[in-house]
Amino acid sequence: MGGNNFGHVFKLMTYGESHGKAIGGIIDGCPANLKLDLEKVQLDLDRRKPGQSAIVTQRKESDKVEFLSGLFEGKTTGAPIGFQIPNADQKSKDYDHIKDVYRPSHADFTYTKKYGNRDYRGGGRSSARETACRVVAGAIAKQLIDPIKITAFTSSIGEIKLSKTYQELDFKHIEKNSVRCPDQDLANKMITHIKSIRKQGDTIGGIVACVIQNVPVGLGEPVFDKLHAQLGKAMLSINAVKGFEYGSGFKGTTMKGSDHNDSFTKDGKTSTNYSGGIQGGISNGMDIYFNVAFKPVATLIRDQNSIDKDHNEVTVKGKGRHDPCVVPRAIPIVEAMAALVMADFYLMNKSSNL
Amino acid sequence: MGGNNFGHVFKLMTYGESHGKAIGGIIDGCPANLKLDLEKVQLDLDRRKPGQSAIVTQRKESDKVEFLSGLFEGKTTGAPIGFQIPNADQKSKDYDHIKDVYRPSHADFTYTKKYGNRDYRGGGRSSARETACRVVAGAIAKQLIDPIKITAFTSSIGEIKLSKTYQELDFKHIEKNSVRCPDQDLANKMITHIKSIRKQGDTIGGIVACVIQNVPVGLGEPVFDKLHAQLGKAMLSINAVKGFEYGSGFKGTTMKGSDHNDSFTKDGKTSTNYSGGIQGGISNGMDIYFNVAFKPVATLIRDQNSIDKDHNEVTVKGKGRHDPCVVPRAIPIVEAMAALVMADFYLMNKSSNL
Amino acid sequence: MGGNNFGHVFKLMTYGESHGKAIGGIIDGCPANLKLDLEKVQLDLDRRKPGQSAIVTQRKESDKVEFLSGLFEGKTTGAPIGFQIPNADQKSKDYDHIKDVYRPSHADFTYTKKYGNRDYRGGGRSSARETACRVVAGAIAKQLIDPIKITAFTSSIGEIKLSKTYQELDFKHIEKNSVRCPDQDLANKMITHIKSIRKQGDTIGGIVACVIQNVPVGLGEPVFDKLHAQLGKAMLSINAVKGFEYGSGFKGTTMKGSDHNDSFTKDGKTSTNYSGGIQGGISNGMDIYFNVAFKPVATLIRDQNSIDKDHNEVTVKGKGRHDPCVVPRAIPIVEAMAALVMADFYLMNKSSNL
Amino acid sequence: MGGNNFGHVFKLMTYGESHGKAIGGIIDGCPANLKLDLEKVQLDLDRRKPGQSAIVTQRKESDKVEFLSGLFEGKTTGAPIGFQIPNADQKSKDYDHIKDVYRPSHADFTYTKKYGNRDYRGGGRSSARETACRVVAGAIAKQLIDPIKITAFTSSIGEIKLSKTYQELDFKHIEKNSVRCPDQDLANKMITHIKSIRKQGDTIGGIVACVIQNVPVGLGEPVFDKLHAQLGKAMLSINAVKGFEYGSGFKGTTMKGSDHNDSFTKDGKTSTNYSGGIQGGISNGMDIYFNVAFKPVATLIRDQNSIDKDHNEVTVKGKGRHDPCVVPRAIPIVEAMAALVMADFYLMNKSSNL
Repeated sequence: MGGNNFGHVFKLMTYGESHGKAIGGIIDGCPANLKLDLEKVQLDLDRRKPGQSAIVTQRKESDKVEFLSGLFEGKTTGAPIGFQIPNADQKSKDYDHIKDVYRPSHADFTYTKKYGNRDYRGGGRSSARETACRVVAGAIAKQLIDPIKITAFTSSIGEIKLSKTYQELDFKHIEKNSVRCPDQDLANKMITHIKSIRKQGDTIGGIVACVIQNVPVGLGEPVFDKLHAQLGKAMLSINAVKGFEYGSGFKGTTMKGSDHNDSFTKDGKTSTNYSGGIQGGISNGMDIYFNVAFKPVATLIRDQNSIDKDHNEVTVKGKGRHDPCVVPRAIPIVEAMAALVMADFYLMNKSSNL
Repeated sequence: MGGNNFGHVFKLMTYGESHGKAIGGIIDGCPANLKLDLEKVQLDLDRRKPGQSAIVTQRKESDKVEFLSGLFEGKTTGAPIGFQIPNADQKSKDYDHIKDVYRPSHADFTYTKKYGNRDYRGGGRSSARETACRVVAGAIAKQLIDPIKITAFTSSIGEIKLSKTYQELDFKHIEKNSVRCPDQDLANKMITHIKSIRKQGDTIGGIVACVIQNVPVGLGEPVFDKLHAQLGKAMLSINAVKGFEYGSGFKGTTMKGSDHNDSFTKDGKTSTNYSGGIQGGISNGMDIYFNVAFKPVATLIRDQNSIDKDHNEVTVKGKGRHDPCVVPRAIPIVEAMAALVMADFYLMNKSSNL
Repeated sequence: MGGNNFGHVFKLMTYGESHGKAIGGIIDGCPANLKLDLEKVQLDLDRRKPGQSAIVTQRKESDKVEFLSGLFEGKTTGAPIGFQIPNADQKSKDYDHIKDVYRPSHADFTYTKKYGNRDYRGGGRSSARETACRVVAGAIAKQLIDPIKITAFTSSIGEIKLSKTYQELDFKHIEKNSVRCPDQDLANKMITHIKSIRKQGDTIGGIVACVIQNVPVGLGEPVFDKLHAQLGKAMLSINAVKGFEYGSGFKGTTMKGSDHNDSFTKDGKTSTNYSGGIQGGISNGMDIYFNVAFKPVATLIRDQNSIDKDHNEVTVKGKGRHDPCVVPRAIPIVEAMAALVMADFYLMNKSSNL
Repeated sequence: MGGNNFGHVFKLMTYGESHGKAIGGIIDGCPANLKLDLEKVQLDLDRRKPGQSAIVTQRKESDKVEFLSGLFEGKTTGAPIGFQIPNADQKSKDYDHIKDVYRPSHADFTYTKKYGNRDYRGGGRSSARETACRVVAGAIAKQLIDPIKITAFTSSIGEIKLSKTYQELDFKHIEKNSVRCPDQDLANKMITHIKSIRKQGDTIGGIVACVIQNVPVGLGEPVFDKLHAQLGKAMLSINAVKGFEYGSGFKGTTMKGSDHNDSFTKDGKTSTNYSGGIQGGISNGMDIYFNVAFKPVATLIRDQNSIDKDHNEVTVKGKGRHDPCVVPRAIPIVEAMAALVMADFYLMNKSSNL
C-alpha cells in the first residue's frame, strides 16, 4: 500500500532514502494565495540539520531545500508544491560493514523481511533523514495556520527533567542553547549529560513537550479523527517515538473526576486545563499541550553482538557519525508534524457547518 | 469532512447517537469466504454492555447486533457488511436538566461551537455508546486475523497498579472478575476502590494494557502509517483516552541505548523486547504490547458549577446512571480497535512484495 | 478493498443486497445545520421505485427510507446520517432456477469468480437495487447545493432520439409521462416502443441526458479529480452504463478548433458552450450538460443458452419481474450521482483559496 | 483539496507546471522486487514528447526522466519512487502576449477564478505537460501487470475513421507511422489531413481506441469503483477528453437485449463481447476495449477575439508552437492511465478473497 502520504486535505507525500540522490516531497491541497516566507522554511530545516552543534551527529548535510512548483511571485498558486533536498554527503562506503547485518533495534530486519530486499546504505528509507521533508511541509503549514502558534522544547533527557509547567517557562530561551530546553540551568545539565553519554559511545532518550496556542474552537473530526488521535499518530510516526500523552496524560489516570474536570468560567474558558485544550476530540480554545517520548538512539559507537541475514552470529562494529540523543534535533520535527495536523483540521473545518 | 470512517482496506464507517433509534455501521473490504462465528461477536458486545456488573453503569441496553448484509450461509460474501444495534433504553427525559448546559470536561461545549447545534440527548454522537459499533467490527476483524491474538486487561485503577509484567500473568483470569484484571488479589482491591469512589459520587481513571501475540513479521506501512502510529491513533480515538505508549514507552526515555537495544538471537527473535514487537514501524514477530491511559469519567453524581449556552453560571445536577470508571468496559473496545488496525495492515501487506 | 464508498468530503458508504433484510447507507461529511425536506428525499425514491408505471418492473417495493441518526429537529447535526430501506418483497424462491447458472451479460460469473461464492438471490450486491441508497444520499446532496439545479431526462430509447437541444425543451414536462422525456410526442413513441419490446420478452437501451444549472465558477480539482472526470466515474458506476460524454462529446472530435472554441462575451460568459460548462476540469459558470449511455437490460423473458458453475450447458428460463428498459427509472439515479459529485466539489472548493 | 493524486493502492502524486524548473511525481505502493526496465519508461516518454514528428508541436523538450529513490540494483525496494523531468525549453517570453488574457476554451479563466491568481507561463498546471509524469508512472505500472497488455491507437482524426474492428488490425503497425493508426492507408490520409489543418492555423479532434488483453478474471471493486468507472475517470482526467465509452458503448443503447447479451461458451468465455470484457464492474477475462474522445486543441495559430482579466475585449494573437491535433501524442498517455488503473485493481484484488 505504501504509507508515504499524510493528511486528508493538506496532503503531503514524500520520497527518498538517506543515501540516494535526493529526498523530496509534494504538498497538495495548500490553498492558493498564501504568501510564503521561504527563509522561515530554511530556518526550520537548519534547526533540524546535522552538524549544527556539539551534541548532535557531525554528519554534514547542507540541507538546502529547492522548490520546483506551486509558487509564483512569492505566493502559493493552488498547484501542488514540489520540493527536493539533495543528499550532499553520501558516504555509502561507511555502511559496507553492515551490509548483511541486522543492527539491534534498527529497522534492518523488518524492512528486509517485509520487502524482501536490503538497501543497506544508511538505513535507506527507514533513516530519520526523511523527516527533513516533514520539516519543509510543516514550515509551510505553520504559515497557513498563523496565528496558531506551535512551540516544542526539550522536557527531559534521561532522568534530567523539567519540573516547571510550560506556563512558568520563557519560550524565548528555547533556541538559546543546543539542547533546546527553555530552562537554561537544566539545559546545561542536559548538555553535559549528553556529552558524557557520547563519550561512552552510548545514547540516551528523552521527552519533547509541545504547546499549541491561539487555537480556534472547533478543530477535530470525531469520532475516529479526533484532534488528539491524529496528533498522536503524527508524533508516533516520527522515528524513535515510543509514546504520546496530552493534557493530564498518564498522570490523569490516577485522578478523581472531581479533581480532573475543568470548570468553565464565564468567558467560555476553563479555570484548569487537564483536558489539554481538547474535549471530545475537538479543540476548545484553550492551549493544547502534549508530550512525546523518544527512545535512546539504536546506533552505538561500541561493538554489539547481532546476527546477519543468514542468522550467523556477528559483531556489529560501532562507527560512523551518529546522534547520541535524538531529542534536540527532534524539536522542529515535532513542531512540523503538529503543524501538518493543525493545517489539515483547519481546512477540514471549513465544511463542518453551513 | 466527517471523521466517521476508519481503515484503508478493512474499512469501517459508523453512525448513531446515544439516544437515537439505533447505532450501526458498515464494514467494507472484509475478504470473501471468511467463516464467521457471530456468537463471538455478541460475546464481545456483552463484555462492553452496560449493566453487566456492580461497578459499571446500570443503564439497560440489551445491545443485540443485527446483521443486514454481506453474509450468506455463515460466510462473508465480499459485499459490505451492514449491521445495527437498536437503542433500547432511550430515556431522553433524563437529559432535560442539561439541555442548555455545558457539562465540565464533556464535549457539549465543543460540539455546540463546532456544529452550531446541540443534540442534548445524552451526549449525542459524542457518547461512548458509538464504541459498540467498533466492538462489532473488531470482533469480525479478530476472526479475520486469527491466529493473531489480542488480549487487553486492566493494568491500573487510580493508584492501584499491576507490578507484574504481562508474561507473569495468566490471561485466563481476566474475565473472572468484573474489573478484568488478571491478578485476582489486585482485582479485588480495584473493585473495592471503584465502589468506594462511586459512593462518593465521584469517578476514577486507569490504564488498560494490551498484548498482541502470534504476529507475523512485516505488518506496518512506513513512513507515516507505522504500525504503532496507527495503533496509537486507534486507541486515542476511544473516548476518555489521554495517552498511549508501546514497548518501553515513557520509561524507555530514561534508558541508555546499550541497555535498550534488543539483541537478536539466532532464530531471528530478540532476547529482550523493549521495541514492543515493532522496529521501524513494522512488526518483527515478537509480542506487541502497549498501554492506554483513561481519564476519570467526567459525569459525576454530585453537583458541579458550570455555564449554560448563554454563558450564565449554572449548577449541573449530578444524576443519571453512569460509570464510576470506564476501564472495565473499555477492555473489549481496546481489543476491537487493535483488531481493526491489525486486520487493515494484514490486508495491506498482501501487496507490499511480489 | 471494497468499493462501496463514494466522495472525498461529502462521503457515502452503502450496503445491502437485493434480497437481504434491508439496504442502507451512511452519509458522512454533510455540514451541520442544513435544513432538510425529507419528503423530497422520498419523492426521488418514488421516482426510482419499481411498479410506478406500466413500462417498468412490476416488482413491489414500498421503498420507504428511515433515517436513524444525524438529524435533529429538522436539521443535520454534523453527525453521520444513517439510513435504511427495508426489502419488503423478498421472493427468493423466484431465483431457485438460476442458483447455479451464469446468466448472460449479468455479473453472476464475475462475482462468483472474484469472491468465490454465489449469493444467487436476485443478483445480490450486483443488483441495481443498491442504487436506491444513492438516490437517498443524492436527494440530500441536492438540498445542500441549492440553488445548483440538476435535471435529467430521457434523450433516446433505442433509435428514437430527441433532436432538440436541451434549451429548446421545457423541463416541466419531464415528469408528465412515464418515460420521462420532455417532448410529449416523442415520449409517446418511446412508451409504445418499450411496450412492444416487452411483449417480445426483450429489452432495449437508451440515453439519459443531464443538465446542471446555476453552477458557480470554480468547482473541480485538477489534475486528476477534474469535475467531468468525477462526473464520468459517477455515471459509469451506475448499473448498465456503457458510456459518458459531456459538452460536445464524441461529435466534438470531428470539429475544428476554430468552430469548437467558445468565445467569451464581456460578462465572462461564452457565446457557445461546446465546453459543456467545464474548462480545464473546473466549472466556468455556464450550464454543464452530459449524456449517459445505458445498455439494454440483460434479463430477458425468454429462454437463453448459457452455462452453469461447472460449465455445463444449460437453458436460462426467462421469468420474473424485470424492466424492459432501465432508462425511465435511471433518471433520478443519474441526478443523484451528479448531486453527490457536485456536493463533494462544492465542499472541497471551500479550501482552495484563502 | 488538491486533486493531484491518483490510485488507492498503486498511488501516484504529481507536481509541476509547464514553465517551472521541473515536473515530477512520486509513486507509492509499488510492490518491492519488481525488476524494472527503465529504457521502456524512457521509450514511452519519447512516444509522448514534443518534436518527434512533423504533425506535432515543434516545441523542444528532451524529456529525460531521472529516478531519485525507490530503486536499488535494478529493482523496486518498496520505498516510494520519486522521479523528475527537467523543463528544458522554458520560453516564458512567448507568453507575455497572453499574460492578462483569457484564451477561448482554455483553462485560463477557470484557474484564475478558482485560485485567484494567474501563472500565465504556458498554462501553468493546466498544461498537458503534466501528463509526462503520468506516462512515467504508467510505464512502471505496465511492467507490474505484465502479461496484461495495453495497446492504444488512433481510431479517428476528424471525420476520417477506422471502420475495421480491433481484431482485424495488426497492432505492430501502430508505431510505424506518425499518427499511430494501425491501418497504414488510413494513417496516410490522417497525416495529410492534419497537415492541411495545420496550414490553416487550425486544429482537429479525434478518437483514441484502447484494448487491454490477457486480463485475469476478477479485477474491479463494485459498486462505486467498478473497473470501467475508474477507467472512465482516468481517461476523462486527460486534457482535452470529452467522452468515454467501453464495449458496445453509445451504439449499444440502440440494441435489443437479445442481440446485446454475450452468450457463454463452455470454456467460460463469451462468443460475442458487447460487454467489453467487464460484467458488473469486474473483468470477465475477455478483452477490455474502449474509446476516448479528444476535442480539437484550443490553441490556434490565428487571431481570436476574447476578453482580458478586466473583461475588456482583446485579440488573442495566434503564435507559438502547438499541436494541430493532440491524438498522436495522446496514445501513450491513454495507455499510461489504463495501466495505472489496472495496476491499482490488480493490487486491490489481492485482498478480495481468502
